[in-house]
Amino acid sequence: MKVAVYPGSFDPITYGHLDLVERSCKIFDRVIVAVLINSSKKALFTIEERKEMIKEATKHLPNVEVDHFSGLLIDYMLSMNAKVILRGLRAISDFEYELQIASINKKLSEDIETVFLMSNNKHSFISSSMVKEVASYGADVTELVPSQVEKALKKKYGYDKTR
Amino acid sequence: MKVAVYPGSFDPITYGHLDLVERSCKIFDRVIVAVLINSSKKALFTIEERKEMIKEATKHLPNVEVDHFSGLLIDYMLSMNAKVILRGLRAISDFEYELQIASINKKLSEDIETVFLMSNNKHSFISSSMVKEVASYGADVTELVPSQVEKALKKKYGYDKTR
Amino acid sequence: MKVAVYPGSFDPITYGHLDLVERSCKIFDRVIVAVLINSSKKALFTIEERKEMIKEATKHLPNVEVDHFSGLLIDYMLSMNAKVILRGLRAISDFEYELQIASINKKLSEDIETVFLMSNNKHSFISSSMVKEVASYGADVTELVPSQVEKALKKKYGYDKTR
Amino acid sequence: MKVAVYPGSFDPITYGHLDLVERSCKIFDRVIVAVLINSSKKALFTIEERKEMIKEATKHLPNVEVDHFSGLLIDYMLSMNAKVILRGLRAISDFEYELQIASINKKLSEDIETVFLMSNNKHSFISSSMVKEVASYGADVTELVPSQVEKALKKKYGYDKTR
Amino acid sequence: MKVAVYPGSFDPITYGHLDLVERSCKIFDRVIVAVLINSSKKALFTIEERKEMIKEATKHLPNVEVDHFSGLLIDYMLSMNAKVILRGLRAISDFEYELQIASINKKLSEDIETVFLMSNNKHSFISSSMVKEVASYGADVTELVPSQVEKALKKKYGYDKTR
Amino acid sequence: MKVAVYPGSFDPITYGHLDLVERSCKIFDRVIVAVLINSSKKALFTIEERKEMIKEATKHLPNVEVDHFSGLLIDYMLSMNAKVILRGLRAISDFEYELQIASINKKLSEDIETVFLMSNNKHSFISSSMVKEVASYGADVTELVPSQVEKALKKKYGYDKTR
Repeated sequence: MKVAVYPGSFDPITYGHLDLVERSCKIFDRVIVAVLINSSKKALFTIEERKEMIKEATKHLPNVEVDHFSGLLIDYMLSMNAKVILRGLRAISDFEYELQIASINKKLSEDIETVFLMSNNKHSFISSSMVKEVASYGADVTELVPSQVEKALKKKYGYDKTR
Repeated sequence: MKVAVYPGSFDPITYGHLDLVERSCKIFDRVIVAVLINSSKKALFTIEERKEMIKEATKHLPNVEVDHFSGLLIDYMLSMNAKVILRGLRAISDFEYELQIASINKKLSEDIETVFLMSNNKHSFISSSMVKEVASYGADVTELVPSQVEKALKKKYGYDKTR
Repeated sequence: MKVAVYPGSFDPITYGHLDLVERSCKIFDRVIVAVLINSSKKALFTIEERKEMIKEATKHLPNVEVDHFSGLLIDYMLSMNAKVILRGLRAISDFEYELQIASINKKLSEDIETVFLMSNNKHSFISSSMVKEVASYGADVTELVPSQVEKALKKKYGYDKTR
Repeated sequence: MKVAVYPGSFDPITYGHLDLVERSCKIFDRVIVAVLINSSKKALFTIEERKEMIKEATKHLPNVEVDHFSGLLIDYMLSMNAKVILRGLRAISDFEYELQIASINKKLSEDIETVFLMSNNKHSFISSSMVKEVASYGADVTELVPSQVEKALKKKYGYDKTR
Repeated sequence: MKVAVYPGSFDPITYGHLDLVERSCKIFDRVIVAVLINSSKKALFTIEERKEMIKEATKHLPNVEVDHFSGLLIDYMLSMNAKVILRGLRAISDFEYELQIASINKKLSEDIETVFLMSNNKHSFISSSMVKEVASYGADVTELVPSQVEKALKKKYGYDKTR
Repeated sequence: MKVAVYPGSFDPITYGHLDLVERSCKIFDRVIVAVLINSSKKALFTIEERKEMIKEATKHLPNVEVDHFSGLLIDYMLSMNAKVILRGLRAISDFEYELQIASINKKLSEDIETVFLMSNNKHSFISSSMVKEVASYGADVTELVPSQVEKALKKKYGYDKTR
């Protein structure tokens, strides 16, 4: 059975991430979306909130699981008996950074492969940080994130008062 | 069963290609190395020669097959009931070209996914055309291609003096 | 009155080009789509065919004109009393090439400005040469080019026999 | 009347920015240089100081105005009845970031266009942050910024010996 | 005598840096590895620790010296009577940043040249910050840094307790 | 003595090339400008014409020599007892191509180093092929090439009839 891990911050999950998960599900037997606990980076949502949003957004996909991890990705991979890391490529700057990460992961464990999917053109400009920036001013993000995430963003930024 | 197709000219196969095939074999159940017949591009080796060299180089890999095709890759994919296209990424210029190809393939068939593996650092500078350029002057290419390919190149360029 | 010239081969015009023309029309008073006669590059359609297709595709845009030119773009600009060159940016490789062209045009005439619009994400992978490649195998290009261009491509490649 | 907005931090304005303003003035009827109030980014100069320096540097250009805004650029554009965002392109990293910003702005308002001008080769390496870095060590910046900005930098960094 | 300065943070020195020093030694008569004192950037190792590690790693190279400096590189170059700045290029993002730095250095002093060497493929993914990230989780870094640096990293991150 | 070889087509030499030669002269004891004989590429000027133009343009530089070679650059380097290849970097596309060439040269001979200088901003858009394109239409190229090259171009393209 081919198990792939899709690691990231997912703060919050966007339609760009979701597109990647949906496409990976057809290629691999089991896909684990793994939220990285990174204490040095300030997040908007807690790990639990992020996992909840991912679960809700992927509940139609039977072979997807949601998890979290801290420390080195490679150690997490080994503990899950997973051999494939999934990553999306949006832009050149992604490309270089991902290449470095993939190289060092290869160096740390010869057995682990990083597999890249190109982002869908329609979603290629969406990043979690841009979604947060735009949502913080009360702009409409319905085309960028699932509706439950949109509601959570409105709540965080205090735009849900009228309801 | 997950079938992946690795299309290309392979004129001739290099250690860079071979590295990609070996790594893909662990991710997919069946990998088809498919030589593209491109009548508008002048090749050094015939389709048969190229397929022979790939077969020889991949004979230790039980789930690899060697084939050829002409026309649109998507049509070939459908005929083989394969859903995954395999591509290597070496450099930024690859990245952009591959992104365009992947986008148009996605447009032509929603079901087909292109999956990218980063080239091994050690092999990232090897391309078939450079190998041919260098071999044409009689330079040593033992670190760039399998030994049978090296012999074939020497023969093509007339450096096999023992004949 | 601000006149902008959009130069190119347009062999044939695609939805990517058309999107750019439509957006430029709102920014400039008059937009001239200018087909470059380049004797050293083999084209699929004649200059007249290309101009006809552009005219048909832009007939809903009152401030668009279609023309052709040969020689240096700068000389054509001066003859049309136009100060702005319009270019689309799709990818990094475009970016660099366009930067060189814009620099040399600036050097040749201080008064001419090159103005860039980013390609719409939806169309960023469409190029005339890819459209031709795909159409030559009889694949469906209805999402890539206007319907009259699609018909012309089918005719050129002999896929209109059943009609 | 075509109104273009050139948004930025301008902390402080450089010859690179000024070159872009001068060139835009010939293309658009009215150009608004709009200083973004970004409370999360520590600036060297106050909004008022920055606006003063831009006014001084552009006083020879009759169709330029200087303004400031906070919040989403798109909201500011609508409030000014402006349809065109002006941006300079210096490098690949700019290109990708600008592409993302332009895409999200397009998504937020279909009517707004982002128009790019390539930076003049002579100024392509000048950024406000480099100017500040260099000026903080007392190095000569007369070729990088207008003379009044140079004086202001000297004063900020304590190199105005006459005090 | 041709003197070249290789400036950097070297926090800590990696096999990537060392490869560059070894290759530069054959091109220039004297190579000065100069640690930049940058008070605004938090470092893992002190200036003295970094210099010690570089000295230890380059002790087999007779024409290498180790030094430190603060302020503008150009001022340091002049004080050392050195005309050549040495830099490694690993990736596109390096390329652009380095181009900007080289341009501004050229502007500040016409006599100074920046000379670039491409990073060895084998080391192109190694950066000091990645080494620190990986080492902080106790992962093996013997292929990334000299053994004395590895020991120093283990000590800093508390993985040397068993000894 | 440090000998550097600057290989290229130089069809014809431009101010961009010349700037690089002048700067290299200060770094290396002896600089050989080596015209590559490439029978598969159609040139405008003969090898002799190209060498003459380079000699004329570099006659003020005592440590510059002009030569030509065919075959592999590495073989030429060894025959000249030179250890350093000189290359200019103008753009990202250069960067990647040069990186590949430098890697394969390193592979072919461990002793040879490729050293890169960034192109002067002022000349970064000049390429021999653009100069030829522009000159072929009779446009002014005095800012792009030395005056003797300009005359030679006029003669080749038949714009010297009035003399």
